[in-house]
Amino acid sequence: MNDLVTSARRDPAPVNTDARRARGSRSRDAALRTAVQLASTDGLEGLTIGRLATELAVSKSSVFALFGSKEQLQLATLAVVRDMFVDLVIRPAMQAEEGLERLRVLGASWVSYLASDVLDGGCLLCSASAEMDGRPGPVRNELVAIMGAWSAFLTNNLEVAVSKRELLSVDPAAMAFRLNALGMAANWQRQLFRDTHGLGHAGAAWTDELDRAASRKAKA
Amino acid sequence: MNDLVTSARRDPAPVNTDARRARGSRSRDAALRTAVQLASTDGLEGLTIGRLATELAVSKSSVFALFGSKEQLQLATLAVVRDMFVDLVIRPAMQAEEGLERLRVLGASWVSYLASDVLDGGCLLCSASAEMDGRPGPVRNELVAIMGAWSAFLTNNLEVAVSKRELLSVDPAAMAFRLNALGMAANWQRQLFRDTHGLGHAGAAWTDELDRAASRKAKA
Repeated sequence: MNDLVTSARRDPAPVNTDARRARGSRSRDAALRTAVQLASTDGLEGLTIGRLATELAVSKSSVFALFGSKEQLQLATLAVVRDMFVDLVIRPAMQAEEGLERLRVLGASWVSYLASDVLDGGCLLCSASAEMDGRPGPVRNELVAIMGAWSAFLTNNLEVAVSKRELLSVDPAAMAFRLNALGMAANWQRQLFRDTHGLGHAGAAWTDELDRAASRKAKA
Repeated sequence: MNDLVTSARRDPAPVNTDARRARGSRSRDAALRTAVQLASTDGLEGLTIGRLATELAVSKSSVFALFGSKEQLQLATLAVVRDMFVDLVIRPAMQAEEGLERLRVLGASWVSYLASDVLDGGCLLCSASAEMDGRPGPVRNELVAIMGAWSAFLTNNLEVAVSKRELLSVDPAAMAFRLNALGMAANWQRQLFRDTHGLGHAGAAWTDELDRAASRKAKA
């Protein structure tokens, strides 16, 4: 369920043919598109039933009918952002060969996603995982699952690159930590300082990390 | 005012000799010690007058009398965390020679601060700057000032190290970005996954970055 790779391989959901359910589903989808933007600027804790109702210019009870609780709204919003991340970052990398090539595409697609302005307030997975880390519960658990799957995806591809001898003298967990740090910091710098230079620094450093470990292999 | 270096050089504030003002100041200091811990776990937006009053087991009006508003409480809390960061991270580095040596001490003191559990929910400057980046106002402005001074402190010391030819072939802004990314990611990994390995990865990568640029100089 929370495996980003499985999700990237999955076919799109079948179209709902029942007209009334389809209308309900469209309302929910429209509400979630607004919810994602709200949460990316105001935080996941700032995303309340009332705040979303105001933004959609509908009654609180109609938003409540769609989601049932603030927590369910937060979880549904996270699911949308997770699918967005899979579509824009993971799926392009799945076209490339596992290991070094996939890691190269992944760096480019991540930086491109962070630069894309697809979310008004930047990457919600980055900000929400910092916001919710001290708040135990299902929302925190879901963030741990998503970000854990992302870290594992990075580490697994580094392990494959090492086993294929595409990279040499690499500790996969340590390099996964450094690669992940680059994107998180680029998002932070862009959102706090409105400074896009971090995106360039992150992309260049991601490539340098891989090139350096690949050239060790060439020299070895 | 927001220059971390100036702050690190400043003498401690003079002792208040008026007994009543001293008592008020002690209440405020005690309240702020609790506020800092609350904000580090629940976020700066979760830090309300009511929540702090509950935690201190006093009336809302007595907390209101100390701070006047949620925003003033948030700003006072940030000032405490800023001073904590200066004492634990910047001040030890000021003992070392400007440039490469100061950067080495800074990496060690930052990792040690992040590992210290001095804040229940981890570095509040990291989490609050991600939390508040989409919320314009005095609190966001203060975070921009503090984190801007921190970035400038890193960059300035890298510039000095380059001008002293302690480091070669270094873009100070790009390296400052990468060094900052390491600590931010270590804090994130520790708080979200309760995983302390990032602290080790960050410390090692910080030293590697400096060693690599210093050995380029030795070879040149």
